[in-house]
Amino acid sequence: MKIGFIGLGLMGTGMAGNLLKAGHDVTVYNRTQSKADPLVERGAKRAGTIADACTGDAVVTMLANDTAVEETVYGAHGVLQNLPRKAIHVSCSTISVALSERLTASHASAGQRYASAPVFGRPNVAAEGQLFVMVAGAPDAIAAVAPILDAIGQKSFVISGTPKDANLVKLSGNFLIASVIEALGEAMAFVGKGGIDKRQYLEILTSTLFNAPVYKTYGGLIAEGVFEPAAFAAPLGYKDIGLFLDAGENLRVPLPLANLLRDRFLTLLAHGGERLDWSAIGQLAARDAGKS
Amino acid sequence: MKIGFIGLGLMGTGMAGNLLKAGHDVTVYNRTQSKADPLVERGAKRAGTIADACTGDAVVTMLANDTAVEETVYGAHGVLQNLPRKAIHVSCSTISVALSERLTASHASAGQRYASAPVFGRPNVAAEGQLFVMVAGAPDAIAAVAPILDAIGQKSFVISGTPKDANLVKLSGNFLIASVIEALGEAMAFVGKGGIDKRQYLEILTSTLFNAPVYKTYGGLIAEGVFEPAAFAAPLGYKDIGLFLDAGENLRVPLPLANLLRDRFLTLLAHGGERLDWSAIGQLAARDAGKS
Amino acid sequence: MKIGFIGLGLMGTGMAGNLLKAGHDVTVYNRTQSKADPLVERGAKRAGTIADACTGDAVVTMLANDTAVEETVYGAHGVLQNLPRKAIHVSCSTISVALSERLTASHASAGQRYASAPVFGRPNVAAEGQLFVMVAGAPDAIAAVAPILDAIGQKSFVISGTPKDANLVKLSGNFLIASVIEALGEAMAFVGKGGIDKRQYLEILTSTLFNAPVYKTYGGLIAEGVFEPAAFAAPLGYKDIGLFLDAGENLRVPLPLANLLRDRFLTLLAHGGERLDWSAIGQLAARDAGKS
Amino acid sequence: MKIGFIGLGLMGTGMAGNLLKAGHDVTVYNRTQSKADPLVERGAKRAGTIADACTGDAVVTMLANDTAVEETVYGAHGVLQNLPRKAIHVSCSTISVALSERLTASHASAGQRYASAPVFGRPNVAAEGQLFVMVAGAPDAIAAVAPILDAIGQKSFVISGTPKDANLVKLSGNFLIASVIEALGEAMAFVGKGGIDKRQYLEILTSTLFNAPVYKTYGGLIAEGVFEPAAFAAPLGYKDIGLFLDAGENLRVPLPLANLLRDRFLTLLAHGGERLDWSAIGQLAARDAGKS
Repeated sequence: MKIGFIGLGLMGTGMAGNLLKAGHDVTVYNRTQSKADPLVERGAKRAGTIADACTGDAVVTMLANDTAVEETVYGAHGVLQNLPRKAIHVSCSTISVALSERLTASHASAGQRYASAPVFGRPNVAAEGQLFVMVAGAPDAIAAVAPILDAIGQKSFVISGTPKDANLVKLSGNFLIASVIEALGEAMAFVGKGGIDKRQYLEILTSTLFNAPVYKTYGGLIAEGVFEPAAFAAPLGYKDIGLFLDAGENLRVPLPLANLLRDRFLTLLAHGGERLDWSAIGQLAARDAGKS
Repeated sequence: MKIGFIGLGLMGTGMAGNLLKAGHDVTVYNRTQSKADPLVERGAKRAGTIADACTGDAVVTMLANDTAVEETVYGAHGVLQNLPRKAIHVSCSTISVALSERLTASHASAGQRYASAPVFGRPNVAAEGQLFVMVAGAPDAIAAVAPILDAIGQKSFVISGTPKDANLVKLSGNFLIASVIEALGEAMAFVGKGGIDKRQYLEILTSTLFNAPVYKTYGGLIAEGVFEPAAFAAPLGYKDIGLFLDAGENLRVPLPLANLLRDRFLTLLAHGGERLDWSAIGQLAARDAGKS
Repeated sequence: MKIGFIGLGLMGTGMAGNLLKAGHDVTVYNRTQSKADPLVERGAKRAGTIADACTGDAVVTMLANDTAVEETVYGAHGVLQNLPRKAIHVSCSTISVALSERLTASHASAGQRYASAPVFGRPNVAAEGQLFVMVAGAPDAIAAVAPILDAIGQKSFVISGTPKDANLVKLSGNFLIASVIEALGEAMAFVGKGGIDKRQYLEILTSTLFNAPVYKTYGGLIAEGVFEPAAFAAPLGYKDIGLFLDAGENLRVPLPLANLLRDRFLTLLAHGGERLDWSAIGQLAARDAGKS
Repeated sequence: MKIGFIGLGLMGTGMAGNLLKAGHDVTVYNRTQSKADPLVERGAKRAGTIADACTGDAVVTMLANDTAVEETVYGAHGVLQNLPRKAIHVSCSTISVALSERLTASHASAGQRYASAPVFGRPNVAAEGQLFVMVAGAPDAIAAVAPILDAIGQKSFVISGTPKDANLVKLSGNFLIASVIEALGEAMAFVGKGGIDKRQYLEILTSTLFNAPVYKTYGGLIAEGVFEPAAFAAPLGYKDIGLFLDAGENLRVPLPLANLLRDRFLTLLAHGGERLDWSAIGQLAARDAGKS
């Protein structure tokens, strides 16, 4: 397929690399152009403008937040203006439900197609093409982009025909992960102050009831207390919990655990945690307990 | 081994059965004596009094709460008075850290040995001998009761030489499970009100990041909304979160997520939820959102 | 003074009436024009457009939320376009800190003056001219509008020369009031379920430590359980707590009690509480406790 | 009246002094006997034992917590053993609802009378005889101790004929005060980080909607950041919120704001706040926000 790819951060670079590896004709764009160099060396075409990345069958966007997606899509010379009729915008970024709904309407008006396809997985997983993809949109669009989803992920899940539904699932998934971080943070503050070795404790948890990767990954970071370099930075986690809460407000669903998580992120950021991995909120329970 | 077993509830019956199956000489005691009948049919000896269950190498207690353990151990004609010197009390109940410390001291004074050995697993797991056992105590005591632990569980983890440490781990483990229930409850209230099928949602979660039994078990109960009969009743979950918070107070560890959980249990119990499974707190987020 | 007044809701009608009573030349505007009738009978001039209300020395806006203020000020034929140079926009609405900052900049660019003057008090207090006014802005602007503030309030407090500071104070004040409602709600659920008469309880509180009007007013509503008609409707309280939290996010201040309040409002609104007074959140603690 | 007085802490000393001033025949007892010296100089009789303080018409206890009251009343040679039939135990300490119920039963069994009479007010208020007294018990007992209550307080409120009801009111009152501290703490962290002077802010609050002493007293302490010496120490506040929550659990009333308060106290105590005034929890919001 002829594919444009916009957004070459930690995640996007790995994803675009896997599209290349799968043999697609990939044109890459990033605002800071030098980030495209390694992919160009591996055979990607360099797009000088967003428009240059919108000449194929589909364009994938993998950007940091709503604002970046809005500028990329709605800006002068943006995706909306340049993508051919029938071509498909595959939005992999973690964005708000509201923006996903707006994109659905805008692309429909422009005669383009839109698939919402947020992903689960950290940068190393993206590099390995092992992401899990949540996808929602019109069946024909989803069928058309199947080769893209196959290249970037180990498995795709079709949520529904309504694009924003994939965003609901993605946001709730990040909430569930952050909940694990908080729960582990409190549990480790508790056993740690009680005199138990945190690594041994984690080993027990993850070889019994909590033998899921999410417990191993985040439990390990909290037990070691090492939060740099960030694979997923605290401001991004903060943003996602905010989007979850915003969507919850619109749905009129009180989410008290999500409130607690947001306060943890706010506290972390108020103390200079911008560059830390989001799992650093897992140390705040110990800090409140007078340990650190 | 010659073993006494006190407490034949949902969990204890399965555990004692597995001691029998492993070929041990088991004498069983329960306050309501008829509960011993099925085990007696399978070869257990019936103890008419607590003292009758204290004539072997070890006595296992598996009781509902601190009060039941206190009455059994410290009551007139209780375990403390009757257990031979050097014999071992294996306490499998989920009890307070404070009581575990008291038992440690009492048995030492009486020349008896004490191993704290709380377990993870619901009644069906206990019946299959597949519990996970957290054990702490003097190495000689733990070595001596290894055949018991092997019979009731799939694996034992030695936490430390200090009995109460196993209780800290057990209480924190139940907290982690209840945290999963709350997080799933909020996530399902959110996606459910957003129009997504809860069963499909759970299927996705548990085939990706959250492929641990705890998510499957409790997510299934919440998605189906079926909380009777209770495998682990709400008042027990409420009690355990209370014990976790009490221990946290003594350690001076604020545990905000545990507070949220306790309020969920209180709300459930205030609305007549005594007979429901503890996972019924996972429906309260939907109730607050006006769904039910 | 020649004054325009925009926004004739429960609050604005009383405020405009007091400007008339003080002898000012008042031109009133409301989107639903019939609301102006009683004031016109009392001597006010009727403005057919926003522009008609912008021909004097100052224009006061008293509107429901940010959106209404934005449309009124920034819309085609809005305040910004029509207010004469040097004339003053007095913004009494409870709006976001961000909008107050934007208004400050916009009016400065247009050569107009801006005073932020949010008020404390319910409709009956507004009708009596007994509001408390928080005012911030350039000293010359504040001095110029002193006759307006004197007419609508019993006392004005100059916060600072920076308009948004008055909004910070106003939002925090509404948070403090809502905190009183929540605290009374929990206390009354507690003593009520304990068998104590709520009215007698409130009488004791307000004749001892809590002899402030805010306890009497809201305690009385909660004790009686009468929340209609709304003097200040739940959606407005919800909005204000949201603005407080938004400003807190921007300032990086975690506000856990405010989160609790927002969840109370969300729960109330999820159960159809749109038309109730905001103090109806004070009944949710009792509801959680299985009462009422 | 011939009155015994047990417990000469910051509060008790002032209260006993006012009994003397009112002309009563007062015998004082304190475990650390030297604390009785100033009162003895003013005419009180010194009791060498608890029994010595139990020879009059009534004995007043003003002690730190449940344990102290239990030891004093139920200990060998305690109040229960020594108080004459028909004589009245006036319990002014802030104790648990459960202990108040136990005292009610015990004194009835012993043919003694019991009035629960917890008080509101800090030590300076106690010294001035200006406490507010919440009293509950049999009408004849309350009538008999009226001269005592008149001497120690500016006003007494008869809650009901059931002693524990006065304790419910007292505990809920301390919860309401702590809620004010928390709300002020969050509001001041908010406006403070927004650049507004905290003293000016408090001045505005307390001259408008929040003109109650509780806002002035605690707001002043938070604005100044001066928490030593403690008039009411943090461990006592922590204890009282714990008693409120315990009673709430027994009544099945979830109290989320009280949970937040308890976590504030736990955090304070985990950081060495034992000697600070309980209002020091009002600084924790600012600390979470990265200030102070």
